[in-house]
Amino acid sequence: MRATVMFGAGDVRIENVPAARVIEPTDAVVRVSRASICGSDLWPYNQMEYGETVRRMGHEAIGVVEAVGAEVRTMKAGDLVVMPFAYSDGSCVFCHKGLHTSCIHGGFFGTGDVDGAQAEAVRVPQADGTLFVLPVGEDDALMPSLLTLSDVMGTGHHAAVVADVGPGKTVAVVGDGAVGLCAVIAAKRLGTEQIIILGRHPDRIALAREFGATNVVSQRGEEAVERVRELTDGFGVHSVLECVGLEQSTLTAIAIARPGGAVGRVGVPQDETMPASLPAFYNNVTVGGGPAPARAYVEELLPDVLEGRIEPGRVFDRIVGLDEVPEGYRAMNEREAIKVMVQP
Amino acid sequence: MRATVMFGAGDVRIENVPAARVIEPTDAVVRVSRASICGSDLWPYNQMEYGETVRRMGHEAIGVVEAVGAEVRTMKAGDLVVMPFAYSDGSCVFCHKGLHTSCIHGGFFGTGDVDGAQAEAVRVPQADGTLFVLPVGEDDALMPSLLTLSDVMGTGHHAAVVADVGPGKTVAVVGDGAVGLCAVIAAKRLGTEQIIILGRHPDRIALAREFGATNVVSQRGEEAVERVRELTDGFGVHSVLECVGLEQSTLTAIAIARPGGAVGRVGVPQDETMPASLPAFYNNVTVGGGPAPARAYVEELLPDVLEGRIEPGRVFDRIVGLDEVPEGYRAMNEREAIKVMVQP
Repeated sequence: MRATVMFGAGDVRIENVPAARVIEPTDAVVRVSRASICGSDLWPYNQMEYGETVRRMGHEAIGVVEAVGAEVRTMKAGDLVVMPFAYSDGSCVFCHKGLHTSCIHGGFFGTGDVDGAQAEAVRVPQADGTLFVLPVGEDDALMPSLLTLSDVMGTGHHAAVVADVGPGKTVAVVGDGAVGLCAVIAAKRLGTEQIIILGRHPDRIALAREFGATNVVSQRGEEAVERVRELTDGFGVHSVLECVGLEQSTLTAIAIARPGGAVGRVGVPQDETMPASLPAFYNNVTVGGGPAPARAYVEELLPDVLEGRIEPGRVFDRIVGLDEVPEGYRAMNEREAIKVMVQP
Repeated sequence: MRATVMFGAGDVRIENVPAARVIEPTDAVVRVSRASICGSDLWPYNQMEYGETVRRMGHEAIGVVEAVGAEVRTMKAGDLVVMPFAYSDGSCVFCHKGLHTSCIHGGFFGTGDVDGAQAEAVRVPQADGTLFVLPVGEDDALMPSLLTLSDVMGTGHHAAVVADVGPGKTVAVVGDGAVGLCAVIAAKRLGTEQIIILGRHPDRIALAREFGATNVVSQRGEEAVERVRELTDGFGVHSVLECVGLEQSTLTAIAIARPGGAVGRVGVPQDETMPASLPAFYNNVTVGGGPAPARAYVEELLPDVLEGRIEPGRVFDRIVGLDEVPEGYRAMNEREAIKVMVQP
């Protein structure tokens, strides 16, 4: 079968690889209907060194179950399933708490011997715990929005949950990428009235406004901090949704949180240390977040997708076939596309 | 009057200074019955450079109101009051939320033109918001425990609140100083059953056990992390109370938190950046905390002190007169004393 393989920075190719197959009795093999390229895929696309083990890319997908192992109970061949970016057994102490990304028997697609989903098919470990059977068909018009439940919509929602978004709270979203845009949706969905987005790409900002952003701050650094404070009685926002992961964005996120506020980090941090430890401390600002337990959020978010109350699928502004995946990476990396959907 | 003045590292003296007096109509002047030396006083004692503005030390006290400004309503001369380490108006948006340390009109004793309390008397700004009138006399046997409400007991409690301590949670306290010991009291008070203290001073550890610590980890670094995991089903604790503020202790605090756990920081951070940003992220560990709103916690903690259910005053193991304050600093700095009470 064909699959996406990263060889080094800027060098992502479609290769012929052995067909995905059931290895463990808890596995399923899923034929990929839709996959997508994630902002986090761009980190290796920019930084991976040759000589590292090549990587099978892709961790967001919807597909049709082709085969299941002997112990798989909750799905059968032909079911349409959404595949969250982490696999998880659904039964360990952390899964029971809703933190599937820390599953004792879990892990992430596209790492180790678990292959990626930008491919014709993918082997899914812990299928019962990982996959969620969707109540629609493969050709449903909602496929783009359903696909976001595999990562970006759950990730934006996670930032909002961690940052304690709710009615009466003011919110800032740092970053206008697909996750930032989904964070706007999540913040509005959770009942907040003021949502400030920090970003500067006109097309993304326009979408953010449609999703519910009430203010736009296009400045950066100190200027951005001042502008957010002007918009919020001088003190900053209650909840900051950090959707970038760079030192500068984290610094800004902490600086625009009001005393006693919270930062929900979902942008994968690019540094070993966190900046602004002292301002966070003196202002009693809580910093939380991490990989979103997307699987835990499917049940909560799915009805709103199915009933059209949220449309996170609008973050996809380009569709490519499998052979065009390298071009998809290039377009996302050069900010020509917000998010690319892959239709193998 | 006499007061404690820091001139530089290791050079703290008792000096004659102008008598404390009412300046603003919202001020009170308090004759100090008891003050104490705080672990945070040791930072300038070790690091302050000559040439910096000399500092009037002390931010924890109980005393008797001597005079009040024209606008002070809730106390009168003769009242015994506890003075939290931050002054606050009690009426701003942050005070209303219980975050008095971020009061819009507030600040910290011993900074700027607000003098310290290791003195015969102290001027207290925003007296109505800051001071809490105690229902006992100046010679009460509970004075040491009541004095801890000005800082250490409230600070230990804050760490526990921020780290979401409660029944069914496992807790680790990093640091066996007076705040760490009070954090043990707070954790037990909030209903947790397992309290692991990380520390290595036999006298303090003994007290920690009496306060409710169930396990002691005297190792440091990786060894400490391993030991805590051994004690907690391999995954670490739900709640970590960081009561030191150094890079190494923060690193350990984050490493011993289980996935989805929380770190409550109350040790004043000594670094601009926070270590272990990546482990905190990948484990969805929340890091919160800061200066404790001790004033907010007085009401909650006072009944337990008055009725003897908690005895945080036992952290004081030395009492000095005002002239002996420099010796008190030396003794605390050399770990001869856990915490020093000053009886001017």
